Amino acid sequence: MIDACLLGTGGMMPLPNRWLSALLLRCEGHIILCDCGEGTQISWRSTNWGFRDLGTIVLTHLHADHVAGLPGVLYTVAHAEREDPVAIYGPPGTAAAVAAMRVIVPRLPFPVEVHELTGGETVDLPAGLQLRALAVEHRVPCLAYTFHRPRAPRFDTDRARELGIPITLWSRLQRGESVTVDGRPIQPEEVLGPPRRGLTVAFVTDTRPTPELPDFVRGADLLVCEGMYGDPDMLDRAVERGHMIFQEAAAIAAAGEVKRLWLTHFSPALTDPGAYLPLARDIFPNTDIGRAHRTLTLAFPDDE
Amino acid sequence: MIDACLLGTGGMMPLPNRWLSALLLRCEGHIILCDCGEGTQISWRSTNWGFRDLGTIVLTHLHADHVAGLPGVLYTVAHAEREDPVAIYGPPGTAAAVAAMRVIVPRLPFPVEVHELTGGETVDLPAGLQLRALAVEHRVPCLAYTFHRPRAPRFDTDRARELGIPITLWSRLQRGESVTVDGRPIQPEEVLGPPRRGLTVAFVTDTRPTPELPDFVRGADLLVCEGMYGDPDMLDRAVERGHMIFQEAAAIAAAGEVKRLWLTHFSPALTDPGAYLPLARDIFPNTDIGRAHRTLTLAFPDDE
Repeated sequence: MIDACLLGTGGMMPLPNRWLSALLLRCEGHIILCDCGEGTQISWRSTNWGFRDLGTIVLTHLHADHVAGLPGVLYTVAHAEREDPVAIYGPPGTAAAVAAMRVIVPRLPFPVEVHELTGGETVDLPAGLQLRALAVEHRVPCLAYTFHRPRAPRFDTDRARELGIPITLWSRLQRGESVTVDGRPIQPEEVLGPPRRGLTVAFVTDTRPTPELPDFVRGADLLVCEGMYGDPDMLDRAVERGHMIFQEAAAIAAAGEVKRLWLTHFSPALTDPGAYLPLARDIFPNTDIGRAHRTLTLAFPDDE
Repeated sequence: MIDACLLGTGGMMPLPNRWLSALLLRCEGHIILCDCGEGTQISWRSTNWGFRDLGTIVLTHLHADHVAGLPGVLYTVAHAEREDPVAIYGPPGTAAAVAAMRVIVPRLPFPVEVHELTGGETVDLPAGLQLRALAVEHRVPCLAYTFHRPRAPRFDTDRARELGIPITLWSRLQRGESVTVDGRPIQPEEVLGPPRRGLTVAFVTDTRPTPELPDFVRGADLLVCEGMYGDPDMLDRAVERGHMIFQEAAAIAAAGEVKRLWLTHFSPALTDPGAYLPLARDIFPNTDIGRAHRTLTLAFPDDE
């Protein structure tokens, strides 16, 4: 399972009634924070997720509205008595930005490990998650991310019993290892079903649509994507500033055949994003307007 | 006149219902921000003060809960199209901390001028305000501040007419300059009354009580002072962490004969500061619990 909780939906600057765009993910007790603008820890505190399990932070880019909350989050995680490392992933420049922001939180009880990505990488995270990064088009280096939880093939217990495999060896076969029973080698394929799809969450902000994005997010169970403007008349502004209108985000969701789309990163001038939701749903019906603390639990389907 | 608006009352970390401690002052259209923790700009936005007139920021010390909101405030002031300089005052280390935090807001349309103080200084601010700094006792270098608006002595118009001074020369005399009328020198003392007290606001956080504090805040119209803990049983903790309990803040207000005291910078564990207000009022009756957006206009009294 992967739990997702949107912490805010704002772009540019936090507002009294709109926290900046950030997303929490949780898998097997491991928490991932996607972007960290000013106020992120305040919105987070209104959830029941706690801070201690934060192990991974991914930053799309180094604009203040996506990173300025980092000192506060690190301080608060320290106050929650975490001692295990926190890994931070971001574009080139992340190490320098994190070092600069840590001038005001110099002492932490856990190591902070910064990894700079340029796009194209796949990284193993804790809890069996795979992080993929894609370079996108903003005014500064910016990355889109997917978080993928693979699913093991179904284990055929009837077949395993027929082959006389002791139950103590089943977990090794489930992990894809071969075993030997009475001197006879047994390959995992003999007891495992066909590959099964896992779970995927995609986080895409701040960027223009790019040709790679539909394939990058393909089949995601949840796509959290920016929609800086709702009004199609704002397209020129979106192009100029390296953002999208709702319809462009919906087009990526449709082309990528994702399961659902949450729009986020609204312009401060966009006071009623819901007014433009129908335009997005015309293109991708399963679109929702993001809101702070909108939560979704993604589970492997029972029937596969 | 000086307007004062408390933006928050929290210490250590911002909470969903409690912004971090920060104070806005305004005099003749010039805005001063005292401390700038994470979320300060969000609370500020709920006032009608606007951001463009921010000309001075004073920082008591460089802990994150007092400075981490600086990038966001500077960015938002830039967005309000300020072009005049912003001066930042703080203890030694402020220049390095500001430079580090500006890594994520590198381009601003106004100059940022940082001035480090060690305590004991008096600095002329815009709008005729005088800033004084006092070194206090925290775990890191920390300053208390007063903001003083002097008041010109009363101008005796009857006496000025008797002396045959043309009205066009009155303003020079009011400013304390001497003038010459028909070849006869006239000193300002001939037409000015006795000195009149001005207006003073004092901002004191985070510190233990120090012997100098009562004199430093003496006679202030408003003392905004930390009270990290309300419960007298927390005194040991206050000593250990370089903070005060309510009764200690009230004792400074009483000894300094200030006009009124607002308590602020409450511990996150102090959920109901009002419960301990009576203990402070026993020592200094005109004490109030600070709250976000508590506003006061200080005016020169009519009768002096």
